[in-house]
Amino acid sequence: MKSVRIIGAGLIGTSIGLALGARGFAVEMVDADRKRELLAQDLVGSARETSSADLVVLAMPTSVLSSVIEREFLLNPQAAFIDVGSIKTKPQLDINTISALQKRFCGTHPMAGREFGGPESARADLFEGRAWIYAPSKECDSEVVKSTVEIIDLLGAIPIRMSAPDHDAAVALISHLPQISASLLAAQLLRAPEEWLTLAGQGLRDSTRIAASDAQLWSEIIGLNREEILPLLRNLAQDLNDLIINLDTNDFVDKTLKRGNAGRASIPGKHGGRNRDYFYLPIVIEDKPGQLALLFQECADAGVNIEDLSIEHSPGQFTGLITLALSQVDSGRLTEHLRQRGWKVHGLQSD
Amino acid sequence: MKSVRIIGAGLIGTSIGLALGARGFAVEMVDADRKRELLAQDLVGSARETSSADLVVLAMPTSVLSSVIEREFLLNPQAAFIDVGSIKTKPQLDINTISALQKRFCGTHPMAGREFGGPESARADLFEGRAWIYAPSKECDSEVVKSTVEIIDLLGAIPIRMSAPDHDAAVALISHLPQISASLLAAQLLRAPEEWLTLAGQGLRDSTRIAASDAQLWSEIIGLNREEILPLLRNLAQDLNDLIINLDTNDFVDKTLKRGNAGRASIPGKHGGRNRDYFYLPIVIEDKPGQLALLFQECADAGVNIEDLSIEHSPGQFTGLITLALSQVDSGRLTEHLRQRGWKVHGLQSD
Repeated sequence: MKSVRIIGAGLIGTSIGLALGARGFAVEMVDADRKRELLAQDLVGSARETSSADLVVLAMPTSVLSSVIEREFLLNPQAAFIDVGSIKTKPQLDINTISALQKRFCGTHPMAGREFGGPESARADLFEGRAWIYAPSKECDSEVVKSTVEIIDLLGAIPIRMSAPDHDAAVALISHLPQISASLLAAQLLRAPEEWLTLAGQGLRDSTRIAASDAQLWSEIIGLNREEILPLLRNLAQDLNDLIINLDTNDFVDKTLKRGNAGRASIPGKHGGRNRDYFYLPIVIEDKPGQLALLFQECADAGVNIEDLSIEHSPGQFTGLITLALSQVDSGRLTEHLRQRGWKVHGLQSD
Repeated sequence: MKSVRIIGAGLIGTSIGLALGARGFAVEMVDADRKRELLAQDLVGSARETSSADLVVLAMPTSVLSSVIEREFLLNPQAAFIDVGSIKTKPQLDINTISALQKRFCGTHPMAGREFGGPESARADLFEGRAWIYAPSKECDSEVVKSTVEIIDLLGAIPIRMSAPDHDAAVALISHLPQISASLLAAQLLRAPEEWLTLAGQGLRDSTRIAASDAQLWSEIIGLNREEILPLLRNLAQDLNDLIINLDTNDFVDKTLKRGNAGRASIPGKHGGRNRDYFYLPIVIEDKPGQLALLFQECADAGVNIEDLSIEHSPGQFTGLITLALSQVDSGRLTEHLRQRGWKVHGLQSD
């Protein structure tokens, strides 16, 4: 494959364009919004005259996928077609109505994104190291499947094959349910006097961060994956109602919290390892410019790799507590290094 | 006041001891666990021979408060008594049964804490800039209230007066409800195949972080504040059930998500300002030691103040996207500064 036509010059489409352009592909960016199209094409750099393509990437909202793909299929009947939408079952059903197209289409979903949209936020490295699910139908040509995996590899992502129903069930649980839960929790705050909210700590902030997500985009995603989401919401409602009924039974509350502990521990960490493999180093720093720089210089000097970090908030003033997540070896090494240099390193504990 | 007796040598009690010791108080640490008591007293440094005190701080689990405070009151009937528990109404009811004690007791709750417990995690600066609620009963001597505010001021915290019922209602919403919501959400993951969880993104991680909290501690808190928590859980259940019933109505889903947006935006940022006052700068860095140090050195050189930051995770590999939250002025200044020096600064957008 040498030429690609990308329909939809948003974050994902333009990032794919940037990455493939950098790898020598002729890239044509197409968008219903002419301004976005021009910006994206400028960013990608390799404008093309022709609309023939070996690969067509459909990177626009899933709601317009079926109408766009029919038109694109007429232009490039020999091309491989992939989409990048958050839902896989519904679009596949639409595409299955055209048997010739069915053979040339492979649904995919890169597990990459940002809270910033638009071509101006695109990055060639957006997919580096990210999982990228591909979900070919039985009817999809093996050659198209092969091309899809090649492209995912080329973009630095990790190809993961799943069936469309499995994909939709998985994202319903790990992505759509947390979104809904965070939105419902955040909405409860609207009932509060303003002064209560000045007492908000990091727990509330973290639990509601994704409640700030784009409502329109998420309405569409939830609508398209309703059938997978519904039983999960029912399970959650059942657990919530059970807790309400048993809130005066200490053992039941304790069991609920312990199940939460276990669920949280089941999420793998950055490198696929379990979270509990990390060690957390709380370090007190002064709230003035340069302190973080000094701290990270120390980390570099000690040769340790920071897996994650957090800064603790407080109302009215920054307390200057930064917590670093590290491997056990690195946390021991860094603790010693920092203490020798007079830093206030506290505790040492795995999660 | 010059001498303080602190019952409970955990994180909070020992931190108070450290801070008051540093300010010239004679501090006596007391704990049912003799080892913890000795460690805390060593840390605090100013061991005392006598058990007479001007101030008695009750910093042990609320479940044993009433039995301990009766004993302590016999030892120091002239002292001011404060507690530091997460719930204010229930302990006050217990204390009200002894009218002499009632006059000498002021319930308080420092909005400070850490996921690390024990005297070894204590810090003299734990309360710096934190809200510290005090909730005196009508019967409390004005002199005791005055002493309480003085101590809170002395520890660098911000005294906030609330009634005990208001306090319990506020923490039910901003602390206890998020805890339960996160625990219930995390528990849903126990139903998932392990391979699904390898696709988990930052949204799921943030939403479930506090699900890792100590189950025993939280069972007690929830048990003591059940009456305030119950209506909040019922509201949440009602909203969840409404959503389940209306999940096929796009407008309803959209409205739910928008209420989540509004609730999230109602949480104040670090300095009491609204979150939406921050500007978010995403910056791509290489995943190797020293990059964070370089970046923060640039921030120091530019003289900007970082309000918050996050690092983005990915399965299998660190993508190296760091997002800084800054004031509008600082974000403009830093963007220019970093771009001149060849950093990859993306987008520019307020939350």
